[in-house]
Amino acid sequence: MSLDATLDRIDASLPQALDRLMDLLRIPSISTDPAYKADCTRAAEWLVAELESLGFEARVAPTPGHPMVVAHGGEGEKHILFYGHYDVQPVDPLELWDRDPFDPALEDSPRGKVIRARGASDDKGQLMTFIEACRAWKEVHGTLPGRITIFLEGEEESGSPSLIPFMVENREELTADLALICDTGLYGDKTPAISTMLRGLAKAEFTIHAATRDLHSGMYGGIAQNPLHIMARILAGLHDAEGHVQVPGFYDDVAELPDTLRQQWQALAFDHAAYLDAVGLSVPAGEQDRTPLERIWSRPTAEVNGMWGGYNGAGFKTVLPAEAHAKVSFRLVSKQDPVKVLTAFRAWLEAQLPADCSVTWHDGVEGSPASVMDISDPAFEAARQALSDEWGVPAAFVAEGGSIPIAGYFKTVLGMDAMLIGFSQDDDQIHSPNEKYDLASFHKGIRSWARVLARIA
Amino acid sequence: MSLDATLDRIDASLPQALDRLMDLLRIPSISTDPAYKADCTRAAEWLVAELESLGFEARVAPTPGHPMVVAHGGEGEKHILFYGHYDVQPVDPLELWDRDPFDPALEDSPRGKVIRARGASDDKGQLMTFIEACRAWKEVHGTLPGRITIFLEGEEESGSPSLIPFMVENREELTADLALICDTGLYGDKTPAISTMLRGLAKAEFTIHAATRDLHSGMYGGIAQNPLHIMARILAGLHDAEGHVQVPGFYDDVAELPDTLRQQWQALAFDHAAYLDAVGLSVPAGEQDRTPLERIWSRPTAEVNGMWGGYNGAGFKTVLPAEAHAKVSFRLVSKQDPVKVLTAFRAWLEAQLPADCSVTWHDGVEGSPASVMDISDPAFEAARQALSDEWGVPAAFVAEGGSIPIAGYFKTVLGMDAMLIGFSQDDDQIHSPNEKYDLASFHKGIRSWARVLARIA
Repeated sequence: MSLDATLDRIDASLPQALDRLMDLLRIPSISTDPAYKADCTRAAEWLVAELESLGFEARVAPTPGHPMVVAHGGEGEKHILFYGHYDVQPVDPLELWDRDPFDPALEDSPRGKVIRARGASDDKGQLMTFIEACRAWKEVHGTLPGRITIFLEGEEESGSPSLIPFMVENREELTADLALICDTGLYGDKTPAISTMLRGLAKAEFTIHAATRDLHSGMYGGIAQNPLHIMARILAGLHDAEGHVQVPGFYDDVAELPDTLRQQWQALAFDHAAYLDAVGLSVPAGEQDRTPLERIWSRPTAEVNGMWGGYNGAGFKTVLPAEAHAKVSFRLVSKQDPVKVLTAFRAWLEAQLPADCSVTWHDGVEGSPASVMDISDPAFEAARQALSDEWGVPAAFVAEGGSIPIAGYFKTVLGMDAMLIGFSQDDDQIHSPNEKYDLASFHKGIRSWARVLARIA
Repeated sequence: MSLDATLDRIDASLPQALDRLMDLLRIPSISTDPAYKADCTRAAEWLVAELESLGFEARVAPTPGHPMVVAHGGEGEKHILFYGHYDVQPVDPLELWDRDPFDPALEDSPRGKVIRARGASDDKGQLMTFIEACRAWKEVHGTLPGRITIFLEGEEESGSPSLIPFMVENREELTADLALICDTGLYGDKTPAISTMLRGLAKAEFTIHAATRDLHSGMYGGIAQNPLHIMARILAGLHDAEGHVQVPGFYDDVAELPDTLRQQWQALAFDHAAYLDAVGLSVPAGEQDRTPLERIWSRPTAEVNGMWGGYNGAGFKTVLPAEAHAKVSFRLVSKQDPVKVLTAFRAWLEAQLPADCSVTWHDGVEGSPASVMDISDPAFEAARQALSDEWGVPAAFVAEGGSIPIAGYFKTVLGMDAMLIGFSQDDDQIHSPNEKYDLASFHKGIRSWARVLARIA
């Protein structure tokens, strides 16, 4: 009865919940760009005010980078920690957006209403599903659904430099019985999912140097090293013709998928043709001897995320540049160690530099390993049932190709398990122009958390 | 006597000549960037006023692009045309300049005073050597040294789109007995040179497309085509391990160097180690089975001048971009046809595109072929003698790795021979930050033209 009343309350107050989300989406909290530092703080302050209005004891907790939001509220035997992030990705290329990324709007789409804005899906819309579930519960019951800590980060899209130190410093305050993380998606467009595997991430940015200055291709073309040629040659060799990464030892710590998971995944009948068709592609790239689902869920990758050098303005400049630049990232799985991978990558690249060329590395050797959840915790089955109730189809244990390092940190730093539940769609265009979040994801997401909290909190 | 008086006059009025050059250098006449259109016109107007002050009948001649400067003056049996260009290259990367590129200054250097500014050497300093020679002659004799047409272009650094139509439309006015072009350099740092071979140029700019939008590397890494990988793979294959261009048919129309020229060039004892050392390099790149001088003077090249795609801002964005871009140019020699080369390059590249990738070409198929001068014209020997007198060492017949398409156009459009004499140094950093022109080049350049004009005008 009390759950039903909460669900009714959620349905009735959806317009107000949406207004609150729109307010948060208007704040351009791009964490990787120092120009938006004040906006990140503003987003944290907005969330603290929001949580205080629900009776949480909340604070903006400073870090050397962007602040954390930490809030405590409610009572109960089981202590639940909820994690989300209020920062967003950069918006470039801005000209590909159909509207101002920070002027959110409800728009029509073939599948129903969508909330259009940077951060709508990743992760402001998602984190607000949990907060709105708490609000509805509070409004119906007068109390929060249990003992809840809310922990919101502002550096998730820029490598979370302050996260581990903050967790270590505030270990006692942040350690709960279970962490809930809302930064993942549905399977397909209506099957609720609990992610039990996440790929890790390692990043490298570097510059290849040749001459001490840019050269005129008429005077030096044909006799001087061109670092753009060297960059192309090295990065062309990052994969073989079958898509295998060529850095020595890269696959050493990659386990084969267990048969049980392989069977579960086969049952999901992943439609890779539709997945690719949604972005204008038709042929799976990458490791040709792996199933498409393995390639995005359980196999490691190496991808060039940016490459630049020479003249790229209007017109032409017949230059041999002094430098060429690239950003390369690796998605990691199983026991792959980011430090070991990056160290091997550096050595592999440096061994290929010809005479007169050198490399500068712009980052440290760091990253986050993959995470594999312990699904024997009964909370996983309870949550699976709650989600199945809300969505009308059995919830699935899936994997996630993206990196959510926080899941691993909760285990390694705080010793607690994490459960990843989220409601984003594959076509939400997160990290891309025209990001959106389905209104149905937002609405049923709030209802889902009410059901999950009713069972586990 | 009259020549000596002119040379004395040049020596005495050098400070005033330098002031005039500084005025011209202050005008940021970057022709490839539309933002500087008004500055290009201003440079043309400045030059017209300068030439009118010498008694030339001069005008700013409009074109669909930047205007030409055309001036006529003097009398004599032989009609000489002088060509230079008042436009300059872009200045980026601006942060590598030690001063504002358009705030010229006389600076000290190990080899003496230098004039530091964008365009100091290419080509404002050079074209002013000829105009100042005319001024000194006029001041001493009351007349110009002969029948002279001055023809200055404002689009040399941006492909000269208006040049051929303008020459065709003004064929009669521009056709002279001989063209003099001042846009080349000394051989070594003190041997005057007449260039008799120039490489041509063909340019291609293109975009490789894959997905319809930028993709998140967590969701699509390992299964979607990454156009940066395709770009790297294709451009890595542009040369083989010995530096030979791999576009089919690229070398079909490339003639071997005649034995006579090969012997002359061997006598020049080109110090490739010093040439490379000046820019921080030590090992000749490019065609490993060719002499260093051939590589920069008489062999064709393919060079990537710009390559970009994905995220290149601060921080990291784990994106698989939808597009990758590049600018590639070819230096051409002998009878190589730019259209044929570019057509072959396009076909070669398109044949390598994998499924789901396409290419867009941003330029037409055009360019300029190489030029080879007819040195049997007695003016070549007369000029060689005049230059030898001024510099105290025998002048050399050399080649030029850069493209000066005008030399070919004078022959093909107007039917007249061209003689290329210039005073720039290898370390002038043309097209690069901190461009300079030796004060000695400027001073002795003016004196050189006075001597050449005395013999041939």
